[in-house]
Amino acid sequence: MGLDVGVIGVGMIGQEHVRRLDGGPGGSRVVAVADADAERAATVAAQLPAAKALPSGEELIASDAVDAVVVTSWGPTHEPYVLAAVAAGKPVFCEKPLAPTQEACRRIVAAEVAAGRRLVQVGFNRRYDPAHRALKRAVDDGAIGAPLLVHCAHRNASVPPHYTRDMSIADTAIHEIDEMRWLLGTEIAAVRVLTPRRSSRGGALQDPLLVLFEMADGVLVDVEVSVNVHYGYEIRCEVSGETGTVELAEPAPVTIRREGTVAGLVPGDWRERFALSYDVELREWVDAVAGGRPPQGPSAWDGHVAQVVSDAALQSLHTGSRVAVELPEQPALYR
Amino acid sequence: MGLDVGVIGVGMIGQEHVRRLDGGPGGSRVVAVADADAERAATVAAQLPAAKALPSGEELIASDAVDAVVVTSWGPTHEPYVLAAVAAGKPVFCEKPLAPTQEACRRIVAAEVAAGRRLVQVGFNRRYDPAHRALKRAVDDGAIGAPLLVHCAHRNASVPPHYTRDMSIADTAIHEIDEMRWLLGTEIAAVRVLTPRRSSRGGALQDPLLVLFEMADGVLVDVEVSVNVHYGYEIRCEVSGETGTVELAEPAPVTIRREGTVAGLVPGDWRERFALSYDVELREWVDAVAGGRPPQGPSAWDGHVAQVVSDAALQSLHTGSRVAVELPEQPALYR
Amino acid sequence: MGLDVGVIGVGMIGQEHVRRLDGGPGGSRVVAVADADAERAATVAAQLPAAKALPSGEELIASDAVDAVVVTSWGPTHEPYVLAAVAAGKPVFCEKPLAPTQEACRRIVAAEVAAGRRLVQVGFNRRYDPAHRALKRAVDDGAIGAPLLVHCAHRNASVPPHYTRDMSIADTAIHEIDEMRWLLGTEIAAVRVLTPRRSSRGGALQDPLLVLFEMADGVLVDVEVSVNVHYGYEIRCEVSGETGTVELAEPAPVTIRREGTVAGLVPGDWRERFALSYDVELREWVDAVAGGRPPQGPSAWDGHVAQVVSDAALQSLHTGSRVAVELPEQPALYR
Amino acid sequence: MGLDVGVIGVGMIGQEHVRRLDGGPGGSRVVAVADADAERAATVAAQLPAAKALPSGEELIASDAVDAVVVTSWGPTHEPYVLAAVAAGKPVFCEKPLAPTQEACRRIVAAEVAAGRRLVQVGFNRRYDPAHRALKRAVDDGAIGAPLLVHCAHRNASVPPHYTRDMSIADTAIHEIDEMRWLLGTEIAAVRVLTPRRSSRGGALQDPLLVLFEMADGVLVDVEVSVNVHYGYEIRCEVSGETGTVELAEPAPVTIRREGTVAGLVPGDWRERFALSYDVELREWVDAVAGGRPPQGPSAWDGHVAQVVSDAALQSLHTGSRVAVELPEQPALYR
Repeated sequence: MGLDVGVIGVGMIGQEHVRRLDGGPGGSRVVAVADADAERAATVAAQLPAAKALPSGEELIASDAVDAVVVTSWGPTHEPYVLAAVAAGKPVFCEKPLAPTQEACRRIVAAEVAAGRRLVQVGFNRRYDPAHRALKRAVDDGAIGAPLLVHCAHRNASVPPHYTRDMSIADTAIHEIDEMRWLLGTEIAAVRVLTPRRSSRGGALQDPLLVLFEMADGVLVDVEVSVNVHYGYEIRCEVSGETGTVELAEPAPVTIRREGTVAGLVPGDWRERFALSYDVELREWVDAVAGGRPPQGPSAWDGHVAQVVSDAALQSLHTGSRVAVELPEQPALYR
Repeated sequence: MGLDVGVIGVGMIGQEHVRRLDGGPGGSRVVAVADADAERAATVAAQLPAAKALPSGEELIASDAVDAVVVTSWGPTHEPYVLAAVAAGKPVFCEKPLAPTQEACRRIVAAEVAAGRRLVQVGFNRRYDPAHRALKRAVDDGAIGAPLLVHCAHRNASVPPHYTRDMSIADTAIHEIDEMRWLLGTEIAAVRVLTPRRSSRGGALQDPLLVLFEMADGVLVDVEVSVNVHYGYEIRCEVSGETGTVELAEPAPVTIRREGTVAGLVPGDWRERFALSYDVELREWVDAVAGGRPPQGPSAWDGHVAQVVSDAALQSLHTGSRVAVELPEQPALYR
Repeated sequence: MGLDVGVIGVGMIGQEHVRRLDGGPGGSRVVAVADADAERAATVAAQLPAAKALPSGEELIASDAVDAVVVTSWGPTHEPYVLAAVAAGKPVFCEKPLAPTQEACRRIVAAEVAAGRRLVQVGFNRRYDPAHRALKRAVDDGAIGAPLLVHCAHRNASVPPHYTRDMSIADTAIHEIDEMRWLLGTEIAAVRVLTPRRSSRGGALQDPLLVLFEMADGVLVDVEVSVNVHYGYEIRCEVSGETGTVELAEPAPVTIRREGTVAGLVPGDWRERFALSYDVELREWVDAVAGGRPPQGPSAWDGHVAQVVSDAALQSLHTGSRVAVELPEQPALYR
Repeated sequence: MGLDVGVIGVGMIGQEHVRRLDGGPGGSRVVAVADADAERAATVAAQLPAAKALPSGEELIASDAVDAVVVTSWGPTHEPYVLAAVAAGKPVFCEKPLAPTQEACRRIVAAEVAAGRRLVQVGFNRRYDPAHRALKRAVDDGAIGAPLLVHCAHRNASVPPHYTRDMSIADTAIHEIDEMRWLLGTEIAAVRVLTPRRSSRGGALQDPLLVLFEMADGVLVDVEVSVNVHYGYEIRCEVSGETGTVELAEPAPVTIRREGTVAGLVPGDWRERFALSYDVELREWVDAVAGGRPPQGPSAWDGHVAQVVSDAALQSLHTGSRVAVELPEQPALYR
């Protein structure tokens, strides 16, 4: 066993994945890194027992030393790296988004279909969060009867200055887009984005949003997307079914009584909230690909569909209208 | 002090109010009852130390023995009783709805304006629930910054066979209509009713609904209205503000661990959930009117506005479109 | 109906009870007040529509205008007032403790037994708190099987400078003494007081204490008594039974997310936490005695037993040893 | 890097640790297993890519292929294996108890001291549970001021027929013995075991117990030990400090509303509750010893002290008296 991994893009999330993959589960190690910033690649490689810094992602993918590729570079660069990995017949884990346009996603899907086997996994980490898995298990087990409505909130303490209105959909709500498809086992048929009163804390940003998804079977999902909530990072989800509801519990591990309150701590950001989900995600990916099996996680098709829905949501945000989602036919590879 | 009250309509809610008012706070007693079912009126009167059954609501209102009137009869009968009480110059507490059409509500408002003083209070009991008051206090105190979004759920375990789709709005969501105006201190500017997948437990009923209110200042409210949830009666509300959120806590007084769960009991129905709010509502009403002061609670104007919004919501339910709410000018009496 | 009440002792708790009783449930009014501070009595009386200030508790009890007596004066004065009320054949509600020594309590019991009917109720308000009633209902309904252990905490934010070590038992833990007898339906057979590390916030006071009660059937109760916890006032209780446990839920009506926490507010003091229990306690007392029935609440016997156990706990606190509780035989009147 | 591990004793917990260690964090693999049941050893080895079944623990320890040893055999066999590993100069992770008598523990400590370096780690997994770590962090950060009291409950759904009264201490409460020393950073000075009413569900077993620890600085700890609670497995702990308290939150990841309750699921057993803590424990152990550093977890000394306290608690259980804990002097190696 063992899996020798190359990582393209070693910024913040890339370095976290390096830490998880080197000497990690399933005997994985990081043997190569590449980054647009060659100095950063060298620094990261120097801290690893078995890794070299390579001059480009392309060379990393081509290297015989690399069994599998992790793409954690800037979104617009995902497509060429993923296509090269597919062409090389190497498993590739690509952080979300698979690619920032649906056309690019479609090309990746086409390439994988042409290759005839699943090589690509997209980093929708919610599917690996123990709490979200418990949520899905309760729904699937019939604990609440058939789902009818879902209420979500996706709240960030703050966002950097370069964060734009469209990123509220394409970078933030995209997690709920994938999550709802996975949780409910149906496609999103239409989307509508409503713009409430704007927070004075977000500058010119239209924040918050209320995003509504109509699932193919009529389940209606509402998602609050707020990116300047100040108090911390919080993900909430309640599914209302015919005979009950299930919702994510507070994740705080301890309750503190002091100064007039009985309180749990809210995570500061997504890294704190979802650290365990990334561990599980990469462990399961390594287990599969090191064992020669296709990855079981979100596929290129899932990445593609998420992008199509994201584009529909952006159109709704821009026009104020409900937008129906038009999906291409699902290739047999992904059924 | 003391207040001698006559009660018109002594069905379930009427009898509960009789129990609260006889020998109740502020020295109130029930001295007269009337009911379309004369036998029922007689039976209720016989159990009270000082009450007579009178043959009609009109005679009850006219009776010199009656200082103030409580109307808990069937909705369509509210208008004539309230108008008669106003004409007689007697304080009148009328269960919601004030009247089932906005035209009827407008006539009541006009009559009270003509009388030149506030005599009418409408039974929107949410405003008296200690938890809802704590919610409003947190919002008003600035604990969460300026409100941006509100998420509500109004869930009934089940409804009787005669319950219709329109009652989801006119009888059920009308509580949230009044609550949002009171909680946020602004008017509802537009409403949109969405129809998710239908619960198989509700027969032909369109259940649940998702009702969206756009407040005049842009705050966006979503309300799940579900009337066959099976698991109990539950009212939820979270206000998302610029720096935090506040939501109703679970009302269960104890936590029970058994058979694999750690659980709070959900109230079975609205009587159990809101018993204390009715106590407070009537106590404060008696305090005010027994002291010769105008009632401080929801006014005829509030009843009227609720009906206008309810009609707009029904129009949205019937047409599928967003409906703007057109309010008449608010008479000076209610400012 | 109606009940004309005289109140002896109109300090803080006395004035609160006056407010609850005047124009209160069951048609009660306050017709007379007395206080060691005559000026205070006059001031309180002047604010009431029907009350006179009388020069002494004795005269108040003797007054023909007074149907029933409430004793909220300083503990050491309880005995003569309660004895006088019993001698006058008038119902008397006496705040806890019934009397500060078991000898005094015994004399009251003897007087009531000689009178041949129940006239005395002691103000152990926990029995009227809705959450404690839900706790008892769960135990009585068998929701958790036979009780085996009980864990309690009685926490005060702070205590006044004159508060002494013995008051931790006689004024504070005495609530749990009565509560455990009522909740479990058995007597306390032995008591042991342990003295943990002393809080630096309590000056020379031995604070906190851990008080252990052995019930007659072997159920073991531990009570944390802390009177300088700083963060608020909190009462906790969990009963562990053979098949589950039941505990008091957090009483906070709303949950607030802000500044990195998701929090409920803790009540500041016992008045805030138990306001409703006092309402219910006095309403039920008025209902009973105005109706000519014996009071159903904690009896003189309960007051006496609490004092006997309190004395045993004090002996344990002073000696460090386990102390068996020796109860006199229960008079037939209280069975 | 990488660490080749031999595992002695591959029953339930042994197999779980094998799963965690083979292809696990830090490049660890399992290269040898041994078991009193040779067939079981062979079966387990056959499922691993790189492991041999060896005929005895002694041969496993002696094998050149083995870098480090994990002892998960039956308690009474721990001593010889740990001593052999120490003699061989190999790091050894030994499940709790280190050894079932304090004499055996003392011999292990003496051997390690003679060896002059730390080789032994004991499997007190609570120290690795994220919630317990958050508890300790709150205490250490001063969030609640100086600790004064601790309330714990250790509840098992049920125990097997061979479980004895003494195992309530030696196998069950021993977790709290180590936890309190670690959490509070002080030694246990005395212990007292109280025997409440016996659960009818535990047969002849004395269940539950209330175990009291007096820490050296006066902090008082009470621990409910219940091993037939029926409703699930639950670990509770609240630390009361001078200005607040901190307690473990409910671990349930989701909240389910159905059939009249709003509920979290309780774990069925310790494996479910503490799965993550074992992951972290072994990951940190591998990280340390694979890096040539001494293990940072509970030491042989901690194992020894736990056994001394456990013996004192057993003496208290047998005699009914408070028993002072007499600790030998701590060797310099462990300071």
